[in-house]
Amino acid sequence: MTDPVRIGVLGAGTVGGAFLELVRDRASAVQAAAGRRPEVAGVLRRSDGDFDEILASSDVVVELIGGTDPAREYVLRALREGRHVVSANKQLIAQHGDELFDAARDAGVQLRFEAAVAGVIPVIRVIQESLAATEVDKVFGIVNGTTNFILTEMAKTGASYSDALARAQELGYAEADPSDDVGGADAAAKMAILARLAFHTPISLDDVSFEGIESVQPDDLAYAKEFGLSLKLLGVAERHAGGISVRVFPCFLYRGHPLSPIEGPFNAVMVEAPAITEITMSGPGAGGLETASAVLGDVTSIIAGEAPVHAVRETVPVVRDVESAFYLHLEVADRPGVLAAIAAVLGDNDVSVKSVVQWGLGDDARLVMVMHRAAESRFHAALDGLAKLDFLRSPPRAIRVIEEEFV
Amino acid sequence: MTDPVRIGVLGAGTVGGAFLELVRDRASAVQAAAGRRPEVAGVLRRSDGDFDEILASSDVVVELIGGTDPAREYVLRALREGRHVVSANKQLIAQHGDELFDAARDAGVQLRFEAAVAGVIPVIRVIQESLAATEVDKVFGIVNGTTNFILTEMAKTGASYSDALARAQELGYAEADPSDDVGGADAAAKMAILARLAFHTPISLDDVSFEGIESVQPDDLAYAKEFGLSLKLLGVAERHAGGISVRVFPCFLYRGHPLSPIEGPFNAVMVEAPAITEITMSGPGAGGLETASAVLGDVTSIIAGEAPVHAVRETVPVVRDVESAFYLHLEVADRPGVLAAIAAVLGDNDVSVKSVVQWGLGDDARLVMVMHRAAESRFHAALDGLAKLDFLRSPPRAIRVIEEEFV
Repeated sequence: MTDPVRIGVLGAGTVGGAFLELVRDRASAVQAAAGRRPEVAGVLRRSDGDFDEILASSDVVVELIGGTDPAREYVLRALREGRHVVSANKQLIAQHGDELFDAARDAGVQLRFEAAVAGVIPVIRVIQESLAATEVDKVFGIVNGTTNFILTEMAKTGASYSDALARAQELGYAEADPSDDVGGADAAAKMAILARLAFHTPISLDDVSFEGIESVQPDDLAYAKEFGLSLKLLGVAERHAGGISVRVFPCFLYRGHPLSPIEGPFNAVMVEAPAITEITMSGPGAGGLETASAVLGDVTSIIAGEAPVHAVRETVPVVRDVESAFYLHLEVADRPGVLAAIAAVLGDNDVSVKSVVQWGLGDDARLVMVMHRAAESRFHAALDGLAKLDFLRSPPRAIRVIEEEFV
Repeated sequence: MTDPVRIGVLGAGTVGGAFLELVRDRASAVQAAAGRRPEVAGVLRRSDGDFDEILASSDVVVELIGGTDPAREYVLRALREGRHVVSANKQLIAQHGDELFDAARDAGVQLRFEAAVAGVIPVIRVIQESLAATEVDKVFGIVNGTTNFILTEMAKTGASYSDALARAQELGYAEADPSDDVGGADAAAKMAILARLAFHTPISLDDVSFEGIESVQPDDLAYAKEFGLSLKLLGVAERHAGGISVRVFPCFLYRGHPLSPIEGPFNAVMVEAPAITEITMSGPGAGGLETASAVLGDVTSIIAGEAPVHAVRETVPVVRDVESAFYLHLEVADRPGVLAAIAAVLGDNDVSVKSVVQWGLGDDARLVMVMHRAAESRFHAALDGLAKLDFLRSPPRAIRVIEEEFV
C-alpha cells in the first residue's frame, strides 16, 4: 500500500473547517482518482499549532489564512522547502505572485490557487491548462458575488444601495465591513491574477483601475430598463494594439449578452480568443464548501501528478424508468365532456396537470398542457389511454419539460 | 536545448488541417507553457502515409480520423507501444473506452479526448481534474450544435423542421447526411462518455436511451411560448436512488434556466454536485479551428506532464485610456435649447449619441442617453463640460455600457 499524502492546513476558519470535513469525507475518492490518500498532518489555528512542526510533517501545504501577513512568509517557506502549495488567497497571489511563482519554479513544486478567483468556476485551470497555448484576447466577467447580489436585488425590488447591502449582510453574502467587495478592490485583485495568467505578463494591483458600486442609484437601473440594459460589476482584461488594460467598473449589458442572465451571488467568466471564439463559465461565487471543494480539486491534481487515466470504480445499475414532467399537445373535437375524459385518463394513471391552455379551432379545439413530474412509464400508459379516445383528431404529441424555474 | 516532442497526426480532414496549422503557429507558445516544442513527425492521409512509420517516429499520436475502424486499432497500437494519445473521436471513446483506458493504464501513458465531447468547452478536464474527488449528482446539457441551431431557427422564424435543417446544411452546421445529429445518436455517444467519467462506472452506448428532434412541430414551439418554454435537445446523466440514468431527448426549459439562453450552434454543459452547487460552461459546439484548439490543449498538457508554474513571457504595457460606450443620466431645466447645448458639448468632444429618452418632471426634465464608443478621456472631457452647464439640476451620472448585443 502506498503512503498517504500528508496535508498541512494553515487556517481553520469557514473555508478551513469545510476543507477538513471534505478531506475526511472524500479521502477514498481522492485515492481512487489520484492514487494516494490525503491525510491531514496538522492544522495551524490562530491560537494553536506551530508552523514549523506542520511544515516538517507535510507534503502539501494548504494556505487558508487570507491576507498577506503571515501568509506570504509561510507560503514562501513551504515552497522553498520543496512543498507543493495550494492557496485560496487572492491578495497573496495578486500582490506577491512574482516572488511566489519564482520560488515554486526554483524548487520544482506546484503552486495552485483555483479557489482564489471565481468560486467554483475552474477558470484558472482552463486558462493555464486547456488554453495554455492559446492567444487569449480578453478575459472578463462577474468575479464578485456580493456586488452581483446587491445589483440584482436593487434591480428586482427597486431597493436603494444601502438597503440591498443590508439585505446581503443579513443573508451572509456581504461582510460586516463590505468595502473591499463593494469598492471593487476584491474584483481588482482577481482580475490582476486572471490578466497575468491569460497574457503571461506581470500585472500588479496598481495596474488595475477599479470603481465600485456604492454610487449606483436605483433610478439608473429603472431608466436603463428602457434600453433593455442590466447592470453588473465587471472585471475586464483585454489586449489592445498598444498593450493590455485591466479594469473593474459597473457596466450595463444588453439583454442577450451571455453575462446578463447571471444573477444573485453568482460569478461568471468569459474567455475570448480567435481559436476558441469564446468560453463562458458560471457558478456560485463563494461559500465555504464551494471554496473548499476548489481547494480539494487542486490538492487532488497535485497528488495525481499528471492526468490520471480514467478507471472504473464501481458498476452502477442503469435506471430507465425515470420521472419526468411533460408538455402534451392534443387536437380534439370541441364538445362537452372532452376535458373531463382526458383528465380521467391522466388521473387513472396518477399523472397530474400543472397548467393547461385551450384554443378553439371551429369544431375542433387544441389543448396544450404541462404535467407535473411522474414516472415516465405512468405517463406513457396515460398517453396510450389518451390515444384511444374517439374525439382525438390527431395522435397526441408529448415533449419533456425541465420543471425547475431558475430565478 | 531540449528535443522537440514529435507528434504523429492521423487524419488530415477539416480538424486535421486546422490542427497542423495551429501547431505551426503556436509551437513557441506550447514550448513556453510546457517546456518543449511540438513538431509534426508525420501525417497519415487517406491516400498517403504509413501508420507504422508515423508511429515509430512519434512521441504523441493525435487521432483525427473519426469512426472506429481503423481508428481503434491505431490508437490501441499507439498506446501499447507507449505513446500518449489525443483523440477527438467520440464514437471511439464511447464504444471502446474500456479497452482503451486499460491499454493506457497498462502502458503508463496518457489518453486525452477533450475535443470528443462539447466543442471548445473543457468539460472533460473539469470533470476529470477539477472535480476528480467530487461526488457528481448530474451532468447535463446541450452537446449537439446542429440540433440546437435547428431548434433555435424553428423557434425564431417559425420554419418547419425540414426548412431549418436545410438552412443548417447551407451554413455548414449540418452534414449532408444529418441522421446521427438530428436522431440523437451523436449526443448519446457524448453523454455515454460524460456519464462514465462523472460516475466512474462503465457506460456503454446501449445504456443510453435517445430520441431526436425530427418530429418536433413548429406549432409546439409556438404554443410552448405561452408557458414561457424554449425547446432544447438535452443530454442528461444523473444519479437516482437505484442507479444512474443516461438519456438524450428534446425538452422544454422555462425562461431563467441557465441553458435556456443557449442558442444557435452552441453547446453548454452543467455539472451539479452538493459540494459545488453547479458549474455551467458554454461555447461554440464545433468548428475545425475550435476542435483543433481543444486537441492542442490536450497535447500541451501531455507535454507539460504536470501543471507548470506560471512564468512571465513578456512585459506588455498597460493601456489606461481605453474606448467605452456610456450611459448618461442628466437632470436639467425643461427649457428650449437645453438638448442643443448638451449635444454641442458632446459633439465638441467627438462623443456621439446612440439613443436618448427624455422624461418631463414639471419644470425639470430627465435625459437618459446611451453613447457610442469613444476614448474614455474624450467622454470624461465631455462630462466636465456638461457639469458646467447652468441648467443642470444635479451632477451628471455616467455608467459604462457593453455595446455588443449578442443574439
